[in-house]
Amino acid sequence: MSENKKMVEAITPQGEDFAQWYTDICLKAELVDYSSVKGFTILRPYGQAIWENITRIFDGMIKASGHENVAMPLLIPESLLQKEKDHVKGFGPEVAWVTKGGSEELEEPLCIRPTSETLFCDHFARVLHSWRQLPFLYNQWCSVVRWEKTTRPFLRSREFWWQEGHTIHETAEEAKEETLRILDYYTDLCENHLMMPLVRGPKTESDKFAGAEDTYAIEAMMHDGKVLQAGTSHYFGDGFSRAFDVTFTGRDNTLQYPFETSWGISTRLIGGIIMTHGDDNGLALPPAVAPWQVVIVPVAQHKEGVLEKARELRESLAKFCRVKLDESDNSPGWKFSEWEMKGVPLRLEIGPKDIEKDQCVLVRRDSREKAFTPLADLDTAIPALLGEVADALYQRAAANLTRRSFYCASMDEVRRTAESETGFIFAMWCGEEACEDAMKEQTGYSSQCIPFEQKQLSDVCPICGKPAKHMVAWGKAY
Amino acid sequence: MSENKKMVEAITPQGEDFAQWYTDICLKAELVDYSSVKGFTILRPYGQAIWENITRIFDGMIKASGHENVAMPLLIPESLLQKEKDHVKGFGPEVAWVTKGGSEELEEPLCIRPTSETLFCDHFARVLHSWRQLPFLYNQWCSVVRWEKTTRPFLRSREFWWQEGHTIHETAEEAKEETLRILDYYTDLCENHLMMPLVRGPKTESDKFAGAEDTYAIEAMMHDGKVLQAGTSHYFGDGFSRAFDVTFTGRDNTLQYPFETSWGISTRLIGGIIMTHGDDNGLALPPAVAPWQVVIVPVAQHKEGVLEKARELRESLAKFCRVKLDESDNSPGWKFSEWEMKGVPLRLEIGPKDIEKDQCVLVRRDSREKAFTPLADLDTAIPALLGEVADALYQRAAANLTRRSFYCASMDEVRRTAESETGFIFAMWCGEEACEDAMKEQTGYSSQCIPFEQKQLSDVCPICGKPAKHMVAWGKAY
Repeated sequence: MSENKKMVEAITPQGEDFAQWYTDICLKAELVDYSSVKGFTILRPYGQAIWENITRIFDGMIKASGHENVAMPLLIPESLLQKEKDHVKGFGPEVAWVTKGGSEELEEPLCIRPTSETLFCDHFARVLHSWRQLPFLYNQWCSVVRWEKTTRPFLRSREFWWQEGHTIHETAEEAKEETLRILDYYTDLCENHLMMPLVRGPKTESDKFAGAEDTYAIEAMMHDGKVLQAGTSHYFGDGFSRAFDVTFTGRDNTLQYPFETSWGISTRLIGGIIMTHGDDNGLALPPAVAPWQVVIVPVAQHKEGVLEKARELRESLAKFCRVKLDESDNSPGWKFSEWEMKGVPLRLEIGPKDIEKDQCVLVRRDSREKAFTPLADLDTAIPALLGEVADALYQRAAANLTRRSFYCASMDEVRRTAESETGFIFAMWCGEEACEDAMKEQTGYSSQCIPFEQKQLSDVCPICGKPAKHMVAWGKAY
Repeated sequence: MSENKKMVEAITPQGEDFAQWYTDICLKAELVDYSSVKGFTILRPYGQAIWENITRIFDGMIKASGHENVAMPLLIPESLLQKEKDHVKGFGPEVAWVTKGGSEELEEPLCIRPTSETLFCDHFARVLHSWRQLPFLYNQWCSVVRWEKTTRPFLRSREFWWQEGHTIHETAEEAKEETLRILDYYTDLCENHLMMPLVRGPKTESDKFAGAEDTYAIEAMMHDGKVLQAGTSHYFGDGFSRAFDVTFTGRDNTLQYPFETSWGISTRLIGGIIMTHGDDNGLALPPAVAPWQVVIVPVAQHKEGVLEKARELRESLAKFCRVKLDESDNSPGWKFSEWEMKGVPLRLEIGPKDIEKDQCVLVRRDSREKAFTPLADLDTAIPALLGEVADALYQRAAANLTRRSFYCASMDEVRRTAESETGFIFAMWCGEEACEDAMKEQTGYSSQCIPFEQKQLSDVCPICGKPAKHMVAWGKAY
């Protein structure tokens, strides 16, 4: 048990230093490695496998609803980036510039895509002709580059992996519907697969995406009380279409501009999973995206028949779940800690005595609850237990969200809460940017979104006293 | 039928201008679009879907054999690129340089990866400690950038999508085995899924990958007689390990250098599919990678019950194949040409008379053969026909390869063949680079590989008359 203990000690406890705990998990669970380029990370096999599971689930959702994947160029000419005024204002300052190709200086600098609205619009302008072609429901999986000053694995890095959906529609109504449909897919992904409860709604004017008419967000509550923006969906109206001269001949034979959306989720979600479900023993992965859902740890594996039985079990379990057999020379205790730290939802222990009784021990990562289970029942017991682990992760996260949700009617209440707690402060708002600034200055809290689920906490904005327009979810964001 | 005719006429016949025929297919089958950046292409949904099918098949192969995906950074510091002398000599002149991030000039220029050996080695050096960790069997799916002067969709572009495998092993033997194992996977992919017969073998010294000890290639014969290098697998020895100081503690407790491989296939394969199977009617896709394996074209679709039946068929066919129902307003003739041009392996026609008889017409893309088929038999008839189409594509391509394979003993024979034919010229070679240069100069043919299947065509090198070492496959390459 000494190795075992050493291993657990290597992770900083959450209560001691949450940021260090997070970094420890990222590195020790072998999710990422730092690279030789500042702010650029490497997704190691375990981190990449989680990302691939997320992509498979979401890719299935959007393909089932008629979306198609494409691949756009990596580079954007400076002139193209500048076509939409708000967009270039938002992204211009944080892009990386290619100025040399081979041995030649480029006539026009090319930036590495920070997002690809401009490239999609440029393509749409070339291929769109008639209303009969609409809608275009496009998506791409790729990495993008934003020259961030301070970086952290998954949460903020100069390169990250994501999907960016870009659609154009005949009417504003259809585009608005798409924006919200995608928000529902994001919700389904987060709440039913990543087991991450959300607060959802539009962003305030000051917090919208560069060039968007409306930005909707899904916001998740992390274990430390800070908020993670987990995905956004934007409605652009026809602003980009006009800037890029994307037109089509409409049903009435007139030339029209299509209405556009874009939407994205990224490897940031892995940061969200870590900070939603992890604990002082390490990662705890939702079964839907865990690279291994079950790890088999043989006990006394040198004894006759143990490894054979364990391998037999791996074969039969592989038919209905993602299963890993740890045959390494490490002690069972070391393996228990290792796979607990890596967040595998279920551990299956099997030793000589279990084999005699045709049973094994199943141990849940979330509660560490143990159950002796007949081998003949595993094909029903394991899926059932994985479902229970998933539900328990959601319940625990939902309890954290509830415990950290504070409804305040007055500025006094807001201030007292902000001083003693971290979480969502729900409070009314007049709709003025000045009051957002004042809130930020006085409490350190900024607006996260205007939740779909509104409550009338007071009639006036607690900041300025003018009539209240909406209830805002204020928070401290990652 | 006038629309139909117009459509078919829009593709330049192969015999008239093969290069233009190729470009026509790329654009008119909606595989790619040109972008606003010279040499950068866009994969449109149909092209991207083919690529996703290829990736799914190959990803399955390598995962089943223990390989794991990772994601490496997009950018390489100049100093890292320069660590391995041969490698930087090979790639240095053709990379794109990032010199500015946000508003700051970078202290060290970063190049966009042209390939990622340097990044993988840098990572391996950080995470490898003991022989117990070996082998690392890593792969990544991404795009890379090489600043090519002349570009063509899929065949040579400044950005292309690929997989790059990078593995390190305890011994040279294991690494050599891996190099050849991957070549076998590539062969399986090309011959059994893309239906593309190959000539396989090591490259000559002058044609090896920058920094490799051995480069093995799979070479495919295109319909015009030119050769496409479809994939390569490299054995590096411990050269990169030494250059990047990648070490591990061996079984005998000494510090050792691991042995390395890398291997790649790319969207180039799509160019290969086009030029292997396409004809004057357009694309012809191998069923394994066709986005749609069957297209249902309703005949007299305005008549009662036709569309309903067609939709019913789509539902039942979707259980065992990738099926598209074309419900558009276009005429059946227009649809026939359209989907023929897009290379869908099977067309299913169904009209009122067919419905009365509980049958439909199945038409093969490769031979245009028609067969009336009872609807009740479709679940066996369609998979069988798809298999027959695949086999016929392979046979046709194999016949082209045979017809274009010329075995020459003397330089006279080589010259006569080179003047009148295009294809593989198989001839003996002494092993000297001077003779490769002479062959190129005198005939325009260059060495493609030293085929595994050797024949003793003569005892001497026909170029210099010195003793022959190997039979080389000479050709004109894309």
